[in-house]
Amino acid sequence: MDNFSIIDYLQNNFNTILDHLGTFAFAISGIRLASSKKFDIFGAFVVGFITAIGGGTVRDLLIGVTPFWMINSSYLIVTGIALIAYLFFRKLIERMNITIFIFDAIGLGLFTVIGIEKSLDANFSYWVAIIMGMITGSVGGIIRDIAINEVPLIFRRDFYAIACIIGGVIYLICDKIGLTSPVTSSITAATVILLRVVANKYHIQLPTVKE
Amino acid sequence: MDNFSIIDYLQNNFNTILDHLGTFAFAISGIRLASSKKFDIFGAFVVGFITAIGGGTVRDLLIGVTPFWMINSSYLIVTGIALIAYLFFRKLIERMNITIFIFDAIGLGLFTVIGIEKSLDANFSYWVAIIMGMITGSVGGIIRDIAINEVPLIFRRDFYAIACIIGGVIYLICDKIGLTSPVTSSITAATVILLRVVANKYHIQLPTVKE
Amino acid sequence: MDNFSIIDYLQNNFNTILDHLGTFAFAISGIRLASSKKFDIFGAFVVGFITAIGGGTVRDLLIGVTPFWMINSSYLIVTGIALIAYLFFRKLIERMNITIFIFDAIGLGLFTVIGIEKSLDANFSYWVAIIMGMITGSVGGIIRDIAINEVPLIFRRDFYAIACIIGGVIYLICDKIGLTSPVTSSITAATVILLRVVANKYHIQLPTVKE
Repeated sequence: MDNFSIIDYLQNNFNTILDHLGTFAFAISGIRLASSKKFDIFGAFVVGFITAIGGGTVRDLLIGVTPFWMINSSYLIVTGIALIAYLFFRKLIERMNITIFIFDAIGLGLFTVIGIEKSLDANFSYWVAIIMGMITGSVGGIIRDIAINEVPLIFRRDFYAIACIIGGVIYLICDKIGLTSPVTSSITAATVILLRVVANKYHIQLPTVKE
Repeated sequence: MDNFSIIDYLQNNFNTILDHLGTFAFAISGIRLASSKKFDIFGAFVVGFITAIGGGTVRDLLIGVTPFWMINSSYLIVTGIALIAYLFFRKLIERMNITIFIFDAIGLGLFTVIGIEKSLDANFSYWVAIIMGMITGSVGGIIRDIAINEVPLIFRRDFYAIACIIGGVIYLICDKIGLTSPVTSSITAATVILLRVVANKYHIQLPTVKE
Repeated sequence: MDNFSIIDYLQNNFNTILDHLGTFAFAISGIRLASSKKFDIFGAFVVGFITAIGGGTVRDLLIGVTPFWMINSSYLIVTGIALIAYLFFRKLIERMNITIFIFDAIGLGLFTVIGIEKSLDANFSYWVAIIMGMITGSVGGIIRDIAINEVPLIFRRDFYAIACIIGGVIYLICDKIGLTSPVTSSITAATVILLRVVANKYHIQLPTVKE
């Protein structure tokens, strides 16, 4: 493979690569929490897998298609790699907090775009697609928190789900003004990633409902 | 629109109006609980929405049709109105406990009827329809309680789910003796509402399984 | 019915009988836990039913078929019998721990086989079928634990789900080397039951992810 075809390959598979990096980051977040709760190795694997594929699975059930991970075994394999990586390089991974956070933000942005596009392809309206983008990005974390018997973090530290929603609105605007699909997707994903990073850096939070 | 057509309009849309009042009451119950757990505004919205549409969503997934709220945006909008109402008139709403309880009971009755009829339309047998009526009325509250990390209230304070079941049996009897569909629906809903109100007033509970 | 036809009947209905024994054992496990949490009778029934049918329901939703218990009322009836049995013979049942454990192990083995075969019939690949076998056997217990607000036991005491996975691999091997379907099913179920019994007797556990 010469230089040209490597670039070609990367371009053609850019989304797939980011999708799997996101899956890896989501799986790691589940495995870390399971580990802190003294789950065994298999339990940690299951929690990591649920975190990675939970959002997309709920989306697929709601829009009435076969869950994506049942068609392609790579999501299971990536979770396995995440578990092995965590077992062998746990201290390194704990120190790579920022790298993991970036992967996680990238995953969130891409998962949101995938959720929106898959719902539009299934002929749902825009507002449903925006909700499905949010579900794809955030429900995995909610199921993870319920599985380990914690109040889902997302309900208290909101700039996760709301970033997906804002990304969805940006997608709608880009699409309506006639941008091409790759440009729309890139702007949407970048918006979600940026919102997540900025909100995290400056501790931006929505107000609580006063008691 | 003259007087006659207003009455006409109300008659034609009676079920829709009650359905949305029920949705409003269910959403308020989720928002109040989320608020007591110090969720942020978005988290409160999500919990309110889940409470309102959770039962019908599980029912639709089980009987194999597209979840109702993905076809009609009004349920999302009613939840938004419930959130705004709660934010602005919280003290008033807290004082309107009885009004909210009545809405909630009306919602339960109507949700039960909707669940039964949708399942019969999808050609399931009566006993499945009765269970689907109960699921439509009570699963939203179960998901709400799991999401906020509490033992679902319904498992301890039963006259919620069991009222739906009794309503379902009444529906079956009315239908078998040949009453028309609107009469059957009205009697069923009234039964559920009455049982809920009476059980609440006189603290009627099922016995626990002795330890 | 003469002797011959009784044997004939038992042979033809062997799987159905084991399936319902397994359902009974799973329902009892849910009812016992609900009882220890002071749930009322109806709540205990619901938790028992969810424990018995939860795994198969999630499997059926994932592979896109109507949940099995909505087609045949016998699962509901068996749960009702389990509740009545528990209410009347609670002390006896508590003393029959080993019998219940054996039923539960048999149920697990059979549920695993049913999950695998139903998924293969729906044209999913082997690895999906193995996961579906595990989901059929273990998700009921996970939902039960979440419903009563406990960390699912399965994530900590793994030889439940992993026994299903090993059984699934055995199924795949038996099938590939050309054994007939009844032989493959029997070996798979026996493997799961044996693993569960041996792991329980010798307290075999997977290691936890070190903190």
